[in-house]
Parts: sequence; structure tokens; C-alpha cells
Amino acid sequence: MYYGSIEAGGTKMICAIGDENGNILDRFTTPTKTPGETVPLMLSYFMNKAKEGMKISSLGIACFGPIDLNKSSDTYGYITTTPKTAWMNYDIVGEFRDTLEVPVGFDTDVNGSLLGEVTWGSSKGLTDVVYLTIGTGVGGGIMSGGNLVHGMMHPETGHILIRPVASDPYPGRCPFHNNCLEGMASGPAIGERWGKPAAELMDKQEVWELESDYIAQALMSYILILSPQRIILGGGVMHQEQMFDLVRAKVKEKLNGYIQTSELDNMEDYIVPASLNDDQGIMGGIKLAMDALES
Amino acid sequence: MYYGSIEAGGTKMICAIGDENGNILDRFTTPTKTPGETVPLMLSYFMNKAKEGMKISSLGIACFGPIDLNKSSDTYGYITTTPKTAWMNYDIVGEFRDTLEVPVGFDTDVNGSLLGEVTWGSSKGLTDVVYLTIGTGVGGGIMSGGNLVHGMMHPETGHILIRPVASDPYPGRCPFHNNCLEGMASGPAIGERWGKPAAELMDKQEVWELESDYIAQALMSYILILSPQRIILGGGVMHQEQMFDLVRAKVKEKLNGYIQTSELDNMEDYIVPASLNDDQGIMGGIKLAMDALES
Repeated sequence: MYYGSIEAGGTKMICAIGDENGNILDRFTTPTKTPGETVPLMLSYFMNKAKEGMKISSLGIACFGPIDLNKSSDTYGYITTTPKTAWMNYDIVGEFRDTLEVPVGFDTDVNGSLLGEVTWGSSKGLTDVVYLTIGTGVGGGIMSGGNLVHGMMHPETGHILIRPVASDPYPGRCPFHNNCLEGMASGPAIGERWGKPAAELMDKQEVWELESDYIAQALMSYILILSPQRIILGGGVMHQEQMFDLVRAKVKEKLNGYIQTSELDNMEDYIVPASLNDDQGIMGGIKLAMDALES
Repeated sequence: MYYGSIEAGGTKMICAIGDENGNILDRFTTPTKTPGETVPLMLSYFMNKAKEGMKISSLGIACFGPIDLNKSSDTYGYITTTPKTAWMNYDIVGEFRDTLEVPVGFDTDVNGSLLGEVTWGSSKGLTDVVYLTIGTGVGGGIMSGGNLVHGMMHPETGHILIRPVASDPYPGRCPFHNNCLEGMASGPAIGERWGKPAAELMDKQEVWELESDYIAQALMSYILILSPQRIILGGGVMHQEQMFDLVRAKVKEKLNGYIQTSELDNMEDYIVPASLNDDQGIMGGIKLAMDALES
């Protein structure tokens, strides 16, 4: 059995074919232009692979947002109010379902990454997990009680309010909330605050002290609200390895002993990097495809 | 069929007997002293009712916390690190299960209230709901995807960090986090900040403007993290009716159009008071009992 997977991102589209163990058997990557330019290339990929004998039984799409996940909505399966205007109100699920004639599973990119990690990564078997990515933007996927959280739409965890540190004059860059988490802690915010790209600031301890404070504030809220068994941090900013210990220490300091669990006693195992070599999203898409076929 | 319900609170214990429609057929209230003093009275209530023909088939306990909800834990069913020291490490589930010889359902008081509201209240049928109570303390119950959220323990939503308003010099009163939501917005915090009890401050507009700002900040985080279909606000502070419109307006202002859903377009129906005349907790206990019997 072959499953199709798409990790639909703002800069590139990854298409892949995988098996029921999450193995990626083949993949194709193309830049995200307009639907008219990009989608035909993606469809051709799956159709050509079918001719070669790798016909997919179903497809999973882990997609940048915001998206409509409400199955009773008229616009279920659409990318909705994205600032990428060419993709606004685009029926991505319908396009692939109707052309490839397979069941299509659909979720946010971050829920997809989380699903990959709990299905085939080091968080396998956990039921309550937060996956936060800190890069160009900040976004989070959430699983609660074994279900990916959707609610009225889907989480937008990157935009929660954090407390600006008194010594930080940076006003934030979120067009909606100025100094929310994404406004203060995204890669571009780091670059703007310090006057050069994050990658060139690796040896500046004060950069990462401040950054880890903002991330720890957000993690404190996630912990108090969701009580997750684990938090996975991904994205470009978290490729700065020193960040993990800084964030762990600050989360502990901020919680200040209020919550006592065996999970929090073992911070190394509580706040962890992604474990699937940046394939967590596309592997999550395989699982979305498997679940779509079953339902 | 009769179901037993206990709403175990820090100041009083409410015991009740109900039916499968959530009707409360009988109730008994006693002050919360020590387990040795209080629990025998509660047990006697249920045993006497059994003799009168109202023998319960199962029991639900909606309990002040923190509590252990992990069924694979050795201390499942215990009240754990509560500041009410007489109840610390008390096996409340075991005591009632072993003496009354019935299945016992168990959850937090706030999850119990939420369960009452979604089972028999105006939020019937919703699957993603936050129930926040703002009174002596601040606490929240959460349902996500139809399941009450437990995770590694249970939510402690009252302790998230909010941003102190610049004009508010009050330092907060939470012993763990000083100026977290509970530290800044509980009833006692209002009293301490303004020098008299909240009930005597009803006509002071600035009191409720500030209070609603802190609550709205917290609601913004819950909305961005959980994407709930509705938020129910209960507790003494929310008996100030003018609070609802203030909170609704401030939530809208803070989200600033970032999330667009039909739910948020209808704020009157999105941020609502509890609907069960303060019986939501004890009615939730009935549902916990029904679920315990089924499983």
C-alpha cells in the first residue's frame, strides 16, 4: 500500500510517497508559487508515480494556514485568510481529492509535524503533546487526549501575549499584536532587534538569554493550560543547540515549583528537539493519509 | 437508577443524588473540615439514602486540587499537594469506592462544572470549551475534542502570566508567581489592591476596567492555544454582570481581527455566564458517575 503526503509550506511544497511504517519511498520538492503554477506540478508527480506502479491509496496534506478544518463547513479543506494572497480561499483538499480520486486527510503543518513525532518519532505513544516551531514565524501543533486539537478553527499558539523584558526596547513586529510571541521571538524579530541575522549572532549570549525567556514564558502558558506530557521545539531558531538548556532552566524558574510531576522533574526529556531530521511534517502527512483511508 | 455526586470544595462539600437527566433529587452540604471529621458525614449521607431506597449505582467526585487523575499512578484518586494540609495525599476516591462499593468517577472541580454545562447546560453538545472560574482563586476546566483535558496532571489555567497594566502598581499575591492571573485578578487581589472587598467596589468603573483587562488577556491565550468554541465564566467576580461586556470588548480588541470565525463574530454567545444556577459542578458530578458506571 502506498500513501501520498504533502507538506505544504509557504516557501516550498514537499510531496512524498510513503508506506505504513512512515518510510519515505520517494519525494519531490517544488517552490511555492501560485496554485496555478505549483499545483499542476504536484499533481503530475503523483500521477506519474502511479504510472510507475506507486499508485497512492490516500493522501495527507499538512498545510500552512490558516485553513478550514471544520468538516461541516462549506469551505472545509480550504486555505483561508492567508497573507499569501494567491492561496487565499484555495480549495487545496478538493483539488487533490477530485483529480487523484483518493481520500484526503488534512491538518495544519504543525499538527502534521506533531503527528509524525508521536507516530514514528521519539514521542511515540504520547497523547498530550505540544509541538512549537520557531523560525520565520512561530506556530504550534497540539495533541490533547490523543486527538489533534482543532476546536473552532485550529490553534494559533504563536500569537499569545508574552511579557516584554524591561531591558528590551524592541517593539515587536507582529502586524496584529506587535509584541506577541511571534512578534518578539521569531527569527526575523531577532534579526531586526539586533541588527543582523540570527545566524550571525550565535556567540552573543544576551541574544539567546532574551530569546529563551520569551519562549519559556510561552511554554509556561502551554504547560498551565494544556498540561502536556512533553513539548517538542523545532524550527530554525531552535537549531541553536544552546537554546534547549536555557529554555528548560527558565521554564523551571518561572513555574517555581507550582506544578509537581515526574515529567517536569526530568526537563531533558520534557522539552526536546524534533527527532525525525526535519521529516516530521512529511511523515505526519503519511499518517494523515492512513487515517483518511480508515475513516 | 440513582447516581451520587460530590462537589468537593475548599470551604464546603456538596453531596447529591441525581438521575440520568441531571436532575438533583436530594442534596446535603457540610463544611470542609478535616477528612476525619467531614468524610464520615458524607459517607453516612449516602448510606442513609440507600436505606431510604435511593441506593446509588455509582459516584462522581468533582474535586478541588491538585489531584491525581492518572489511572496508572499509585496515587490515582488522591488529593495531592494542596495547601489544605489535612487533605494532602488523601485518597478520596479509594475511601468512597471502598466504603460505598460503587464505581467512582473523578475529575477536577472545574472540569466537573464544565461537564455539567456541556451535558445539561446551554453549552450542550459543544466539544471544545473553556470553563474559567474567578473567585477566591482562579481556575479553569477544559474540554478539547469532546474529552476533558488531563494531560500529565490537569490544567492549572489560573496561573498563566498576564501583562501587568502600566498604571497598576499592585504587585500581585500569588505565592508562586506573584503577578500571574490568579495573583492579579482573584477576588482577594481586587480587595487588596483597592483596599476594600470587591462587593463594595461595584460602582467603581476603574476596578472592573482593570479586572476585565486581565481576564481578557488570559482569554486571549486560551483562544489562541485551544481554539475553543465557547468560554464560560463563573465564580464570584463574574457575578458583577457588567464584567461580561467589558471582557468581550477587550478580547475582541486584543485579538485585533487575527482570528476570523463565526464564533468570534458573535461575542455574546462566545463568552457566556454559567447557565445552571451554580449547580453545574454537582450536575457534572452526576455525569462523572454515569460515565464511571459505563466504563
